[in-house]
Amino acid sequence: MQYPEAIAKLIDSYMKLPGIGSKTATRLAFYTIDMNEDDVKEFSKALVATKNDLHYCSICGNLTDEDPCEICRDKTRDQSTILVVEEPKDVMVMEKVQEYHGLYHVLHGVLSPIEGKGPEDLNISSLIKRLQKIKAVKEVIVATNATPEGEATAMYLSKLIKPAGIKVTRLAHGLSVGSDIEYADEVTLFKAVQGRTEI
Amino acid sequence: MQYPEAIAKLIDSYMKLPGIGSKTATRLAFYTIDMNEDDVKEFSKALVATKNDLHYCSICGNLTDEDPCEICRDKTRDQSTILVVEEPKDVMVMEKVQEYHGLYHVLHGVLSPIEGKGPEDLNISSLIKRLQKIKAVKEVIVATNATPEGEATAMYLSKLIKPAGIKVTRLAHGLSVGSDIEYADEVTLFKAVQGRTEI
Repeated sequence: MQYPEAIAKLIDSYMKLPGIGSKTATRLAFYTIDMNEDDVKEFSKALVATKNDLHYCSICGNLTDEDPCEICRDKTRDQSTILVVEEPKDVMVMEKVQEYHGLYHVLHGVLSPIEGKGPEDLNISSLIKRLQKIKAVKEVIVATNATPEGEATAMYLSKLIKPAGIKVTRLAHGLSVGSDIEYADEVTLFKAVQGRTEI
Repeated sequence: MQYPEAIAKLIDSYMKLPGIGSKTATRLAFYTIDMNEDDVKEFSKALVATKNDLHYCSICGNLTDEDPCEICRDKTRDQSTILVVEEPKDVMVMEKVQEYHGLYHVLHGVLSPIEGKGPEDLNISSLIKRLQKIKAVKEVIVATNATPEGEATAMYLSKLIKPAGIKVTRLAHGLSVGSDIEYADEVTLFKAVQGRTEI
């Protein structure tokens, strides 16, 4: 005996999501059967809407339902700083901190020779054009992840942008707040010593 | 700044699934944006189809797209045995073993005083009616889980059905195949000794 067709298809769909195998997919599918009907309908609509209504901002590459995005349209933001991130969700993470009030630029990835990702696969050329067009930009903060690929991308951008006389900075490395020195890895500790500040 | 509406709604929907918190929901929602459009459409359709097309078999309580279900309609199956399980997915699990060829009955839960689940909340009365109607049934195998609630439900069913002269059995307890005695818990070992067989 096989699963009824409807549920077999739903299991297949759940399995296409990252980190969800056949057992979890089956559990989720059976859970869906017992879910509130309105919730399921909304879920179904949200899936298609996400695919249809969202696109990337033509200026910064951030996810948006309007073009240009909310941040690029907002003239009260500091127009002299651009913070470069890997993915659209990093923009949301930075916005939650409420410490940064400038503009953003989303690369949609990092340089990765292993995955065959070169500069032309990233949203880099539009950043360069943006810098050439808007002369107001004084600083580019490269906030790619603290991975080897993220570091390499930061170095690449720095070499590309610095000759134009624009300051290029990188987020500070160091101990996480609340963390134990005992459990910190050596590279992080080394960076924390290098970047020590006077108190 | 907030997430665009479409993705915020999708994150909310993913969060309604069991075991998925806000971080995983966000990750899944962003993954959905980059998914193949056909896959997303199919996912969306499968959700609604699962909710609309599936219902429970009026005889055994199993999930089905036709009523009665495939197993209840199949007259070649052994009509003298009914295997009682907690959930529809347990039927699939048993069917995969291909050792059992009788009928099923799905309880949709177990007796659980803590969750306030009594006999009237389970699919028990229809099982009793079924046994009274079809005189052919000679054995009821109670295959509820080996949890305290599953055991209690098995005992309850046994007391209810035995007086009618129908044999009530329970799946064997013992060591999992391939497991180490060293790591077996005491109760399982005790049951394994009790249920030892001659070789």
